[in-house]
Formats: sequence, C-alpha cells, structure tokens
Amino acid sequence: MKNIFTSHFPNSMKGLVLKKFDEGLTIETLEVPKPAKGEVLVKIDSAPINPSDWAFLRGLYASPKKLPVVAGFEGSGVVMATGNDFFSRRLLGKKVACFSPPDGNGTWAEYTLTQVATAIPLKKNLSLEQGSMLLVNPLSVIAMISIAKKKRSHAIANTAAASALGQLLDKMCRQNGLQCINIVRRPEQVELLKKNGAQFILDSSFPNFNTEMRDLFKQKNVKIAFDALSGAMVSQLLAALPKGGEVMVYGALSEQEMMVPHGRFIFEGKKISGFWLSQWINQQSMFTLLQAFNKVQKFLCTKHEIHIRDRMSLTQVIEGLNTFPENMSAGKILVKPGQL
Amino acid sequence: MKNIFTSHFPNSMKGLVLKKFDEGLTIETLEVPKPAKGEVLVKIDSAPINPSDWAFLRGLYASPKKLPVVAGFEGSGVVMATGNDFFSRRLLGKKVACFSPPDGNGTWAEYTLTQVATAIPLKKNLSLEQGSMLLVNPLSVIAMISIAKKKRSHAIANTAAASALGQLLDKMCRQNGLQCINIVRRPEQVELLKKNGAQFILDSSFPNFNTEMRDLFKQKNVKIAFDALSGAMVSQLLAALPKGGEVMVYGALSEQEMMVPHGRFIFEGKKISGFWLSQWINQQSMFTLLQAFNKVQKFLCTKHEIHIRDRMSLTQVIEGLNTFPENMSAGKILVKPGQL
Repeated sequence: MKNIFTSHFPNSMKGLVLKKFDEGLTIETLEVPKPAKGEVLVKIDSAPINPSDWAFLRGLYASPKKLPVVAGFEGSGVVMATGNDFFSRRLLGKKVACFSPPDGNGTWAEYTLTQVATAIPLKKNLSLEQGSMLLVNPLSVIAMISIAKKKRSHAIANTAAASALGQLLDKMCRQNGLQCINIVRRPEQVELLKKNGAQFILDSSFPNFNTEMRDLFKQKNVKIAFDALSGAMVSQLLAALPKGGEVMVYGALSEQEMMVPHGRFIFEGKKISGFWLSQWINQQSMFTLLQAFNKVQKFLCTKHEIHIRDRMSLTQVIEGLNTFPENMSAGKILVKPGQL
Repeated sequence: MKNIFTSHFPNSMKGLVLKKFDEGLTIETLEVPKPAKGEVLVKIDSAPINPSDWAFLRGLYASPKKLPVVAGFEGSGVVMATGNDFFSRRLLGKKVACFSPPDGNGTWAEYTLTQVATAIPLKKNLSLEQGSMLLVNPLSVIAMISIAKKKRSHAIANTAAASALGQLLDKMCRQNGLQCINIVRRPEQVELLKKNGAQFILDSSFPNFNTEMRDLFKQKNVKIAFDALSGAMVSQLLAALPKGGEVMVYGALSEQEMMVPHGRFIFEGKKISGFWLSQWINQQSMFTLLQAFNKVQKFLCTKHEIHIRDRMSLTQVIEGLNTFPENMSAGKILVKPGQL
C-alpha cells in the first residue's frame, strides 16, 4: 500500500450505515479499509443524495449489497492511499469522482474504498462538489442519448423532467441535435425549465395534457419516452406515442404499479422496457466509458452547473432523511462527511 | 369479369352482418359483389370462428372495417368469378383459402370478394374445411417461430396453449427444433396436450405453478413468452422469465388490463411487446409469405388435423353466438354459409 497521509494511516472513520431497509440510517464508527492491488481509498469531500440512493434505503433498488452497509452510490474526494500497482499509484493525491463498489460500503462516510477503474480523475476546473455528481446522472443522460440515437429517434420525451437528471438531459439533447420533450408535474417546474432554455415542456397537471402530448409526440415523431415515475404515467405515455413507440422506465417516483391495456402492444406495436445505468455500463467497452466521462466533465465545466440546494453533515442527513424526497427539483443535497 | 356460374351470376346472397359492436349479428340479404381487376369472388364453403373474430364482434379488435359489415376474417371455398387479368383468371374454379379484405365484407357469407394475393390455392389433398383455417392460426405460428429464432431463443412459452393455435404451435415447434412450454388453465387441458405429444405442460391452476414455471424457464433458458390472455398472466410470465426476457402479448382472453411492477423493466431488463399477425404480414416479403403458405399446407396435409367441434349454418351461428368463447380448446366451430 502507498499513502499520502501526513502522520499515520487513520484507525477509524464515521459513516452512515443502513442496517435494515426503510428504517433509517445510523452513524457508526468503522475501520478505515486498506487498499489492496487495484484499489484506491478516497477521502470523501461530497456525495449527492440521488433518487436511486433513496430507493436503496427504502429497499426498492436491486443491489447485491448486503446489510449492514454504508449508503451512497457516488461521490468525490482525494485519493489518500492506493494499492501498490502502476494504475492505482498513478491516482495518489488526485481529485476523483467515484462509484462505491457494487457489493461494498458506499460514499456517505469519511472514506470509501473503490476499484481503480471506478475512480475518475477530475479535470482541473471541475470542483469536487460538481464532480461528486459526475457519474449517476450524467452517465444516465449519455446512455439515454445513445439509446435514442440507436433507435433513430430524433426526438425523445422524459418525465420528472425538472429533476437534476432531467435538466441535464434537456441541455445535452440540445447539444446533440436531439429534441427533448420535458414532462413535469407542476406549473413552477415549467418556469424553471423555461429559464434553462428548454424548448418543449408539458405540464401533466394541465387539463389538456394527454391531447397536447399526443399531438406533440406525433409532430416530432417521438419514438421513445423515458419515464422516471411508473404508475399511471406509463399508460399515458404509451397512449400518446405514435405506433411502434417504446416507453423505457428508469424510475418509480410514483411508487405505483403500472396498468396497461393490451391493445397498446398488440394493435399499436408499442413496447415497455427498462433502463438501468448499472446494466448499461456493463454492456459498454472501457473506451466508450472513458469517452463518456470526458464528455460529461467538459459539459459540467462549461455548459451546465448542477444546482446544489443544501450541504449536510452526517448528523444532519439523519435528521433530515424523510424530507429528501420532497421537491427534488429544487436542487441536489450533498452529504459532506468532513463537516461536523 | 370471368365466371364459371352454370346459369347466371347470382343476384343476392345471405351473410352475417355486424351492425353495432357487442350487439350480435343479423342475417342480411346482400348484393353479390362483382370482381374487378385483381379481385376474385369466392363461394365460401367453411369459415372458422377464431378468437380474433370474437374480439372483433365485441369491438375489442383494431380493424379499419366500417360497420355494418359481414363478419369473418378467413375462410375457404371455390373461386367462381374473377377480374379479367392474368393472375386472377388463373384462379378460376380453384379451391382457395382466403382472407377477407382489410376494410370490406368478411367470410361469414355465401360469397366473399377478395384480392387475388390473399386467395391461396389449396393443395389437392387438403380439404376445404382444414383449408379454411389455413391463414390466421398457422401463419401466426410461423410468425412466432420466426420471431423466436430471430431472438435466438431455443425455447418459448405460450399461454392458452390448448387452443387450436396453441396445439399447432407446439407441434410446429417440435418440428423446428424449438422447445415449447405450454401453459394451460385446467387439468383436462393437460391431458389433451399430453395426448398430442406435448413435452412441457404447466397448469396455472396448480398451486406451485409460479415456482415450477420459473424453474422450467430457467432450465430451458426461455427468452420469449407469447401470451393470449393479458391480465394477471403477463406479470406472472414477466416474473418467471430469466433476466432480459420478453412477453409478447397477442390476445386478451382474460379481458383484463395487465398490472406490472416497474422493477421487472428497470432491474431485470425485461420487456412487454405485442404480436399482431396483420402487422407481421405487412412486414414480410411476398416470397416469405408464399413459403409460409406452402409450409403450413404441407403440415396440415400430413402432420396435424385441426379438430373441428361443430359446423353451423348462418342461423345456428346467431343462436349460439354467446356460447362460443366457452371452452375454445374443445375444437373449432366452422361457419357453413351453404348449409340451411
């Protein structure tokens, strides 16, 4: 092991541990793990609370992680120690964005141990805070755009479009020559997206929503709609899509099952499928992923700043936990394990 | 026009007319249509009552047909008159299977006018009765097998498997080196399929059905399940399929909406899509279709006789209409417009 700790390798750290699904988090004192070959130890600066984290805490997310476990799927920080191999040593002292390991402790702790391949060096002018949100949302957006292009859809739709992911998707679509139809649930979210320059916005609380959506989908020849809500929205999207259209479900913010009449499939040739970032990543080559990381970082440096609503210490996270799902479009909350 | 009527071209005919969806049929006297170029007039010998006919009568089938219209999607008979062009004249006096035109009167009448391309000459040793069921079910089976092969699934599942379509699918799968898992709803249907030589049969009324289905799907690596029921069966199939599996809905015998949890799509990469014969036919080349007709006829001549439960005159059809959906696996009912 190589490390850059000025005095000694730390004995212990604090982390937010999930012991039972849907029963909240506790602050625990844990041993700081020592990186082996191919591993790096990141001192966490920031880690966002994403909808997927929230779903994981509730027990609604498929994950091989065994409880008890430190929560948090992504974050950023400085590499303080590495295994003694060429690729790991190269990262020593670097600012990185990182995924938590698929089956291990997460980023809502003072330190996270991760594989060298899932620690991405940050560009000089990208802050640790913006960099902490480099992976889950931006990679999802890149994946969605690549899926839309493969299906030769020049326009896509997305629900819960005022989310951090939704805002980024709209902007990156515009940069990639794709038209994005943003579907939100409240009038104030329409205003928010307008301010960001979004061209096509539909408000599902509006009485003519279904008709407007169908007309716009037809006009733009939308072949694919990404859905973060599940429940009733899926059948509304299926009804609105032109023949042969596909709904790709990637979230279930409504926490409801979807109900669909068979005619959409048989007579209209429509489909429901799913999108899951973990699965998409597994199907990509390392080269595609490196290209994607590079593209996203450039975009976050120059074209888009993810709005941060609040920064919280580990203690504050425990206190505020139940309020997080409210108003996700108001901005991201960052977990700051170094804050008291 | 050319014709082979011995005396004069008939003035009128009887036919079963649908005036309003879900309000039964009436016998009407209609003018016998005169074939123009590219058209043939078939004197109907037999026409099956398929589940798709039943769905059409109920108003549950997508069709460009405008009411009032003669019912019946397929049938068989002798070509009595044709347009005066080479391809049509060739069929004069021939025994044919035929589709009714997409937007015109159907086969439950003494005569049907159809396009020359949808009148298929029958092989010598195929009876008019067996030939009357040449198109809807057998072509669906050929389509399903071709879809399964394209998706590289060496095993498929099918629900309502004791239906005429289901029985044919199982046999043709075996001939094509595909394993077919037959899902039925009653113990007596298990016996029926066993007698026909089916290898894999699951009874959904059996208490361990879901577990057995999952185990068998896994063992056989079933990637695609065809479903004629809709409703609850769709989520049962989705749950049982291995990751990445697809349910293709082709019927809605349960007449219920399907309810699906989002996790099947997001985390398990599964899909729901639809299969509709009309759509499939439109996507095939004439050559593929001719090959398919040929294959099906050979199969019906030598390997499989579709079981006929009853033969009915037009009057008998009206009287028995509401009993048809009961026990479809007992055999086909043929409409015989020539019977008094």
